[in-house]
Amino acid sequence: MKKSSVVIVEMGLRDGLQNEKTVLDADTRVEFAKRLIDAGTKRVEIGSFVSPTWVPQMAGTADVLAKTFALQKVGKLSKKAELSVLVPNERGLQDAIQSGVKEVAIFAACSESFSKKNINCSIEESFQRFAPVMALAKKHKIKVRGYLSTCFGCPFEGKVSEAKVVKLAQRMHKLGVYELSIGDTIGVADVGQVRSLFKKLKKVVPAKKLAGHFHDTRGQALANILAAYDLGITVFDTSLGGLGGCPYAPGATGNVATEDVVYMLHGMGVKTGLNLDKLLEINPWIAEKIQHPLPSKVGKVGRLKPLGKV
Amino acid sequence: MKKSSVVIVEMGLRDGLQNEKTVLDADTRVEFAKRLIDAGTKRVEIGSFVSPTWVPQMAGTADVLAKTFALQKVGKLSKKAELSVLVPNERGLQDAIQSGVKEVAIFAACSESFSKKNINCSIEESFQRFAPVMALAKKHKIKVRGYLSTCFGCPFEGKVSEAKVVKLAQRMHKLGVYELSIGDTIGVADVGQVRSLFKKLKKVVPAKKLAGHFHDTRGQALANILAAYDLGITVFDTSLGGLGGCPYAPGATGNVATEDVVYMLHGMGVKTGLNLDKLLEINPWIAEKIQHPLPSKVGKVGRLKPLGKV
Repeated sequence: MKKSSVVIVEMGLRDGLQNEKTVLDADTRVEFAKRLIDAGTKRVEIGSFVSPTWVPQMAGTADVLAKTFALQKVGKLSKKAELSVLVPNERGLQDAIQSGVKEVAIFAACSESFSKKNINCSIEESFQRFAPVMALAKKHKIKVRGYLSTCFGCPFEGKVSEAKVVKLAQRMHKLGVYELSIGDTIGVADVGQVRSLFKKLKKVVPAKKLAGHFHDTRGQALANILAAYDLGITVFDTSLGGLGGCPYAPGATGNVATEDVVYMLHGMGVKTGLNLDKLLEINPWIAEKIQHPLPSKVGKVGRLKPLGKV
Repeated sequence: MKKSSVVIVEMGLRDGLQNEKTVLDADTRVEFAKRLIDAGTKRVEIGSFVSPTWVPQMAGTADVLAKTFALQKVGKLSKKAELSVLVPNERGLQDAIQSGVKEVAIFAACSESFSKKNINCSIEESFQRFAPVMALAKKHKIKVRGYLSTCFGCPFEGKVSEAKVVKLAQRMHKLGVYELSIGDTIGVADVGQVRSLFKKLKKVVPAKKLAGHFHDTRGQALANILAAYDLGITVFDTSLGGLGGCPYAPGATGNVATEDVVYMLHGMGVKTGLNLDKLLEINPWIAEKIQHPLPSKVGKVGRLKPLGKV
């Protein structure tokens, strides 16, 4: 039987903001997190512990976390919302442990060129770095989520082998990640690829441990999510308004917009726990902060507001 | 067994251009039709025989038709491409017959307010006008396609009853239209509505006679097409680049973009007969003519063009 609920993992604060030109201070990011959680968001990737030299947008992630935890502690924010951060290596994980976060995410690419360009190491090297990270996380009872990027295409190499993605997914799963997010980093995937790849992935990783992470560069993200959902995938990464992009892929736009995905899923009777009207209120607020309109179409037009009978 | 091909009915010249501010002359529209047909388009709605006072963009439709037919006659354009025109009434059909076209389309709304605002008559009155139109078309062996608009929502009344849409679809089908296009005129439909309505429609009209006509106002059109296709619908109306809009629905955008739909379908291994690369070449050409960029995302970014190994 098909599940009738989907978990939305909000990427706006990390994958979204890290690809925006405007750098937001910690307090604004706390306010963004608060608004998202108040709108029903249960999982928020709140930032990353990477070098601020490399990613200035993520500077102050510890501060954002501390202030958001503080709001949860005093009951001003739902304690049910789970916060996580991206960590590139053991050093990042140590910072994460210090910050008191209970979940981190690790990432690897499926294309050598993207791996080199993005994190300056080979795919093999990135997996070697995971061993001590996983051990330390286990010791501190930190949940680890895994990301595989460029699963459907690479901006440098083009085609990415399905077999390679499946092999890397299996490898990451065996490392002990509790969930594995399959990324269409540059928004090139089509429904045919999504169906084919997820069918194969389900043979090596349980469907409930798989998530879909689609960018909307070619407008295919909603159809891709529908295709993945119909195959039993029930966790999807989205960004409020469609925040973000990809610095290495010309014209690449952000993650699929949270509002657009929620509009589709709620229309299908699929529960997300999110309040669309509240999400729609966040859109102009964050757009003003980053100083440009966001691509989300539902965010722009909203629900149908009848003008009245003629 | 699922069919592995889809027929795209190109709306750019009619539903697209009639909602654009810039009025294109007949020769430019002939060139547009030529480029579409050269890209493999098999069915083109080339204009409408309505009053130029009401719709100045469609003035000269007879001229566009005559010149396009002439190109076909001398072998400069594929004779396989079928051209059609929209006709609002018997008078329009007479003009169409004069023009030598072999196919016309008639239209009715599913919402009284939209019907009044759009064509200044009730739904009942619009159906009464169809009787002489169908009789005259039959006499002249003209194929008639039917459109039902506002099938998923009305800009004035909001919700539209599914039962009403099904009843009107059955009525139009019984009139003898060879195909019935189900329109989400203001781009408000979601996958849940599409699945529910098309399942009901298939009980009163054979699936092969049903077409989907989705606007992309809320970014849902591709997912809606995927949902309809999975139910056996294999004819879809699209506009090159996503040309158009709806004058009565604030923020409404055009038909779903031909390029975006073709990208999805070809990725699924579904044949359309269209050449995506040629479609992508038309996009900047027509955008220049109408003096603004078009919303199609595939049109904007194109296929993945790998930058080369790192």
